[in-house]
Amino acid sequence: MKFALGIDIGGTTTKIALVDEAGQIANRKFFYTSKQKSENDFFESLFVSISELMEEAGSEAHLTGIGAGAPSANEREGTIENAANLPFSPKVDFVKVLTSKYDLPVSLVKDSNASTLGELNYGAAKGMKNFILLTLGTGLGCGVVVDGNLISGRGGHASEAGHVCVNKFGRECGCGRKGCLETYVSATGLKRTAFKLMANSMAESSLRNYSYENMTAKAIAQAANAGDVLALQAFDYTGETLGRAMADMAAWFDPEAIFLSGGLAAAGELLFQPAAKSMEFYLLDFYKGKIKLLPSALGVNDAALLGTASLVWQGLPTIRK
Amino acid sequence: MKFALGIDIGGTTTKIALVDEAGQIANRKFFYTSKQKSENDFFESLFVSISELMEEAGSEAHLTGIGAGAPSANEREGTIENAANLPFSPKVDFVKVLTSKYDLPVSLVKDSNASTLGELNYGAAKGMKNFILLTLGTGLGCGVVVDGNLISGRGGHASEAGHVCVNKFGRECGCGRKGCLETYVSATGLKRTAFKLMANSMAESSLRNYSYENMTAKAIAQAANAGDVLALQAFDYTGETLGRAMADMAAWFDPEAIFLSGGLAAAGELLFQPAAKSMEFYLLDFYKGKIKLLPSALGVNDAALLGTASLVWQGLPTIRK
Repeated sequence: MKFALGIDIGGTTTKIALVDEAGQIANRKFFYTSKQKSENDFFESLFVSISELMEEAGSEAHLTGIGAGAPSANEREGTIENAANLPFSPKVDFVKVLTSKYDLPVSLVKDSNASTLGELNYGAAKGMKNFILLTLGTGLGCGVVVDGNLISGRGGHASEAGHVCVNKFGRECGCGRKGCLETYVSATGLKRTAFKLMANSMAESSLRNYSYENMTAKAIAQAANAGDVLALQAFDYTGETLGRAMADMAAWFDPEAIFLSGGLAAAGELLFQPAAKSMEFYLLDFYKGKIKLLPSALGVNDAALLGTASLVWQGLPTIRK
Repeated sequence: MKFALGIDIGGTTTKIALVDEAGQIANRKFFYTSKQKSENDFFESLFVSISELMEEAGSEAHLTGIGAGAPSANEREGTIENAANLPFSPKVDFVKVLTSKYDLPVSLVKDSNASTLGELNYGAAKGMKNFILLTLGTGLGCGVVVDGNLISGRGGHASEAGHVCVNKFGRECGCGRKGCLETYVSATGLKRTAFKLMANSMAESSLRNYSYENMTAKAIAQAANAGDVLALQAFDYTGETLGRAMADMAAWFDPEAIFLSGGLAAAGELLFQPAAKSMEFYLLDFYKGKIKLLPSALGVNDAALLGTASLVWQGLPTIRK
């Protein structure tokens, strides 16, 4: 039986899986990226995991290709460059290392594009020609599909939605600029908003017991679900900012749908309700009521993994041998 | 000899021309759109102009198709809808009227897309796969080319750059919302900025002799070229806002170049210099120094006309018979 090997490289864990053409995962493994000391460690752990995975799959399993997704991937070069949360040197020739180890075609895409491909090929975006997927985690990732294809731009750096400016005098961003969308709309952005609200308002809140280091988006969601007014306001503010940004996305791309995935999207209606309301408010008239706001159908864990595997089946231009 | 008929419909004039496949204009005509009382008047004037044009061209001239560009064009339907500056009823079946008059394929695109096609096929964007063209006139029009193709989105309303939000508490826009890019970056936006500066500052300025109704972008450019400090500040502010918006465009599309065309772009360095400086300042690191800011190579008058003619030669999907 033919399988694609999907590799989803994240800051905490790296997941691998054998996936058939229908998007069914036959078996899977993971190891902790965060416990690797260098790229050499990383590749050693990766090769061991792949060996184990193939052994478990048995001699009937036949690998046709490898697809991978990673933060800071340079899709044009097949490299991972200046990845802030990976134990890598500034430039890692990922595709070259994999192709010299295995005699197979290998393709590398940005993590957010991997999730977008997963949604397109196996999820709720099946059959859609124009849509956007936003991954709301520590930062904000994005993939944009136009006329059925992922956009990548001249240098492979398109759809950097986390770094469009929503307020030129706004919050400092890790990129060195101010007011980037991800400083407001992400798990970290939600936390920053909660701290701003605690500073500005006198409302009692269970969130006042958390240090900045210990506060999480999950804790804010739990407080909001328990009726904590300040936590609810934090979600409203985040949703309002997201909705306004999505109205701009509509103006650029006129998409059929915008998907929200990632840890923060797991908060569900706490985020979707104010975001949808705000998007409708800010939309130009001819988009109103026409753009669906949807959760990912695949969940946080499998969207990227399935997307990387689909790279093999789709024979995308990023693939090389 | 084979020709395409290009039709560029604007609020003031409608231009028509016979264009060969190399983009050479054989002959041309125009009539005043603004003097037409209704769409019936408009079509009558258009048909007369086309007859005259064909007569002048002689019996050797053979028409292979018709391409047209207009504000508020619905490219999917071949209609012109709710055009604020045309003497039309809410929905004009442009393509249907033309095809029933002439036994030829007819294609209709938005005016900004027509200019973008002109630049792509006959101008400075020849050979570029990823670029953006901004038309800075009364409003701000935009065309975006991704992987060699104009993007249009689900409903044909993509690349509405004039209505992305640069300040949620900003200037009122004709669309009914606030802070749209075109309320700052357009001939009208420049004028509004000059009036704001006259209100805020005590600087002497020749612009203080103009009423709002009489003020033009051209007058502000002339004052700036004569060293008027307030007029120069108006261009700096406009360029700064444009540059920040272009940094966002880079994040979305990673283009090879951004072209500025239209009346306001004719101000040249007065606009380009602060816009380029601001764009470089706001760009994410990996775009810095990589995105060209260029003037249109075709000029205000011919870009759209050539673009509409190219619709015929390219056989784009919008074409119908």
